[in-house]
Amino acid sequence: MIDAVGRVTSRPIFATISSPSVKVSGMDGFALRSSQTNGATEVNPISLDDYMPVNTGFPVPDKYDAVLLKEEALFDGNKLKLLRSIRAGENIRFPGENFSQGELLLESSRRIGFQEVQLLAASGISEVWVWKKPKICFIPVGDELAALGENLKGKLAYESNSFMLKALVEDWGGEVIIHKILPDNFEIVLEALLEEIEKNDLVIIGAGSSKGNRDFTADVISKVGKVIVDGIACRPGKPLILGKVKGKPVIGLPGYPVSAWVGLYFFVNPLIAAFLKTAPRELDRMKMYLSKGIVSVQGIEEIIRVRVGKVSGRWVAVSLPRGAGNISSLGKADGFILVPREVIEIERGSEVEVHLFREKSELEGTLLFIGSHDLLLDLIADEIRKGFPRFRFVSAHVGSLGGLFALKNREAHLSGIHLFDEVTESYNTPFIEKHLTGENVEVLKFVYREQGLMVRPGNPKKIRGLSDLRREDILFVNRQRGSGTRILLDYLLRKEGISPSEIRGYDDEEFTHLGVAMRIASGNADVGMGIYAAAKIMGLDFIPLFEEEYDLVTLKEYIDLPQFKAICQILDSPSFKERALSLGGYKWARKS
Amino acid sequence: MIDAVGRVTSRPIFATISSPSVKVSGMDGFALRSSQTNGATEVNPISLDDYMPVNTGFPVPDKYDAVLLKEEALFDGNKLKLLRSIRAGENIRFPGENFSQGELLLESSRRIGFQEVQLLAASGISEVWVWKKPKICFIPVGDELAALGENLKGKLAYESNSFMLKALVEDWGGEVIIHKILPDNFEIVLEALLEEIEKNDLVIIGAGSSKGNRDFTADVISKVGKVIVDGIACRPGKPLILGKVKGKPVIGLPGYPVSAWVGLYFFVNPLIAAFLKTAPRELDRMKMYLSKGIVSVQGIEEIIRVRVGKVSGRWVAVSLPRGAGNISSLGKADGFILVPREVIEIERGSEVEVHLFREKSELEGTLLFIGSHDLLLDLIADEIRKGFPRFRFVSAHVGSLGGLFALKNREAHLSGIHLFDEVTESYNTPFIEKHLTGENVEVLKFVYREQGLMVRPGNPKKIRGLSDLRREDILFVNRQRGSGTRILLDYLLRKEGISPSEIRGYDDEEFTHLGVAMRIASGNADVGMGIYAAAKIMGLDFIPLFEEEYDLVTLKEYIDLPQFKAICQILDSPSFKERALSLGGYKWARKS
Repeated sequence: MIDAVGRVTSRPIFATISSPSVKVSGMDGFALRSSQTNGATEVNPISLDDYMPVNTGFPVPDKYDAVLLKEEALFDGNKLKLLRSIRAGENIRFPGENFSQGELLLESSRRIGFQEVQLLAASGISEVWVWKKPKICFIPVGDELAALGENLKGKLAYESNSFMLKALVEDWGGEVIIHKILPDNFEIVLEALLEEIEKNDLVIIGAGSSKGNRDFTADVISKVGKVIVDGIACRPGKPLILGKVKGKPVIGLPGYPVSAWVGLYFFVNPLIAAFLKTAPRELDRMKMYLSKGIVSVQGIEEIIRVRVGKVSGRWVAVSLPRGAGNISSLGKADGFILVPREVIEIERGSEVEVHLFREKSELEGTLLFIGSHDLLLDLIADEIRKGFPRFRFVSAHVGSLGGLFALKNREAHLSGIHLFDEVTESYNTPFIEKHLTGENVEVLKFVYREQGLMVRPGNPKKIRGLSDLRREDILFVNRQRGSGTRILLDYLLRKEGISPSEIRGYDDEEFTHLGVAMRIASGNADVGMGIYAAAKIMGLDFIPLFEEEYDLVTLKEYIDLPQFKAICQILDSPSFKERALSLGGYKWARKS
Repeated sequence: MIDAVGRVTSRPIFATISSPSVKVSGMDGFALRSSQTNGATEVNPISLDDYMPVNTGFPVPDKYDAVLLKEEALFDGNKLKLLRSIRAGENIRFPGENFSQGELLLESSRRIGFQEVQLLAASGISEVWVWKKPKICFIPVGDELAALGENLKGKLAYESNSFMLKALVEDWGGEVIIHKILPDNFEIVLEALLEEIEKNDLVIIGAGSSKGNRDFTADVISKVGKVIVDGIACRPGKPLILGKVKGKPVIGLPGYPVSAWVGLYFFVNPLIAAFLKTAPRELDRMKMYLSKGIVSVQGIEEIIRVRVGKVSGRWVAVSLPRGAGNISSLGKADGFILVPREVIEIERGSEVEVHLFREKSELEGTLLFIGSHDLLLDLIADEIRKGFPRFRFVSAHVGSLGGLFALKNREAHLSGIHLFDEVTESYNTPFIEKHLTGENVEVLKFVYREQGLMVRPGNPKKIRGLSDLRREDILFVNRQRGSGTRILLDYLLRKEGISPSEIRGYDDEEFTHLGVAMRIASGNADVGMGIYAAAKIMGLDFIPLFEEEYDLVTLKEYIDLPQFKAICQILDSPSFKERALSLGGYKWARKS
């Protein structure tokens, strides 16, 4: 019967017994005849011979019609002494009080959860009619895909959609069979489809990451069945295919994880619900404040992933990068906004409806950081979840200035900045004074970091300093405008009299230190500016240029939030300091 | 790795590779050198020899730095013809764009869901450190308990808490071992506790339904460990016990399902979360309008189960009967209200916070019925869920007059009434005109039902009509005030010149037809008034007295709701009519 949990009833279930089945006591006490207690008062107590001790839930013999509470009982020798009269039926639970024989316990098409399984068991029902789980076979296809656990051996990527699919489909009530990865071969995929469609209720062909494969899936379906939908007006998710083979549904699922998720949630989910004759599962929705405007395309529905947190009593949604190919943005997303086909823009500050991937209680403990990227933010995120599991640290990286604006607009609790002021030759304070005028600001001194040039190991192009960026054979990679690193670079360039136009790659922007480091490590650029810790992680050489101050900034109104107190505790813990300094390139600026 | 779903990370997980690992194409198209496209326009196209077709996600050779979309490609023989210049980096995805080596993928203490498992798989991580599932042993104790599937054989009830416990605890991340049911024997329970505490992380001793057993659990724990909490100031849930044996937690769980649920949710849930170093799962909460006032007891937290629906754009919570012993009210509940210790009353119409057992999407499709009880309501509930799984029919039974008030106050979509007017000797209309004055009412004619006296099979007390209710040897059971059956009875009594005071049991009230029938069937009353169908289900004899009209009443403002259209479709379907009439005692009043 416990196996019924998660299943859906295929017939109504009526009670076959009544509960309680006989007259029982509702309390621990003494069963008696109410008529014998008439007239009892504190002044004129009545003593009874005819009574019986009963425990809660135990049968009360026919001759008794009420129960006196154990706590109320007084004795006069062996006689029960009553200081008040008892009403007939007092503390008695009559047969059928829970449910009567013939009463509906569960309707058809009801999902069985903990409440339902308890009710069935209590009703003595040990077997229940449920709909068969639909069998769903997923066939991942792609020459470029390696199976997890194997060596990539020249393959481009690990097949990961099957893991997401299995977790989701099982949760929705389906049974999942994962086929081995097939190569991009028409005949082989066709053969597998024909074999699996016989054994399963639904076959999903997972395209690799390319559109080439998608067309190929449509051809396979057409060969032995019918393609009904070839592409949907939704982004991500566009290359989805819906077809029919031997009377059964076949779905061509796009390869990118986010697109695949769209296909699963909006198409596979209702299909499973239809097999189970029930309603599809739906994510919860909540109205939120949009902290960054969205530009969309007319004629296409767009799904914008967001991170969320509650700032100053208002739920804030921060949009994540949109590329379908970004396989980590699904993992980072707390939910999504659905931009309707006819909408081309949602302005910053609008109220939007967010479909939530996570439980509200998890989101409520969010400490929302918007600001400049630093590797220590990852450590803070880890430490806060570990030490204070009710809280989580969510960071969006928009550069130092963007962080100050977010604070001002009450879109974040915390920001991290490293802004060098050329006039005063000092860090951060001048910018805070300028951009957060009138606000009650609290600066948490954090770290000094070494900024410098990152180059490939051994420095093959023999870069010595900024003047080398002028060289014809040097390809530079920059940080985005508004970031503290970019501002520092521009200051240093001016000081050395170097013009941006002299630097090849100056307009090529990355958003994080690791992004820049990765471009260099992979040979797609020769040099970039960033912090020592990023160079160290990527095994790059480092030419120090400057020591900068990276500080955390907040508003006084947040410092009493429990999640804020948690973060302060982490910042001041010796173990966090030790972990942070072990990355290299940092000096501690906190007093502790 | 798929087995990691539902587990909680015990270490932070950093990316060990970058993704993509090399420069890849972001689209299907043609890789080329952007520098060779400078100056291309529609008037002055440029033709290229040096290009390469690439699929999305496929590596782009070092020498190329941009990709032209397939859809944009024109050809001039074998040469690629360009009508515009291409920017360096266009449609290129650089290494590390998804995530860079060394970047934090998942923090410690993170619950792994579909997003996390997909991210790990895509990152090539096939093994992950997670916390061990805590092992939880549940020992149900009680002489009165039978195991599900067995014959009751003199036992009072089926043990059902283990089913609820297993469903919940597994969902929360624990591993559950269900012990066989033990008798109420100190030595046997002690021995089992000592044995299981060695093998498990937590032992839960499930009391039977009686408080006697509870005391017994405390004694067992005290014998070999320590009782830390003996009873909590919460109702239901009061008899909970928290203890410690051999350094491990032991919980004494109350026997009534609702009380057991309170212990599980508020005590076992956080304990499991503590084992997993994560936050406990929490039910979602929503503000609602309270449709019926609540009186509570000072000094005790009270948990009031409710059913909910959205009426006229407002979420309405209707409280359910409170007795902890009511084993079906947990199954019926959509959520609960927590009445704080210091509050003694929450007025009708107050805003209350409801903790939700069900997903909001399921609740949104509710058609809320408040009114008089009829057996056909169960059939409607079944048919609506079966035919329209997005909707559900929820009924609360407060009698006919209460139903009209609920409609007026916008607390329900639909009501069912059978109110006889003595003056006009007609049904329903006079009451609707009086109590819903000024409202735009729609009456759905429904059924004629036979009302009469229900007596035990064979009519052992030879009851012939209402005048027999005066007899000394007859015990009557009544329906509650305001119910149509009660109003009809009072009318008939007056007509025959019978005074209520002449009837033994007149003040003994039941809330449903089946409730009355059950009291008679079990010998706890001799006769009661009710409808034929109830008598038939319980195998009672029936003495017809009157044919009454039971109609459904709504307000015009609801008739365009999709769930309302669904219900009309069901009422008019021949199969529903057939199913309804087969119960007996009904005549169809609808036109169809």
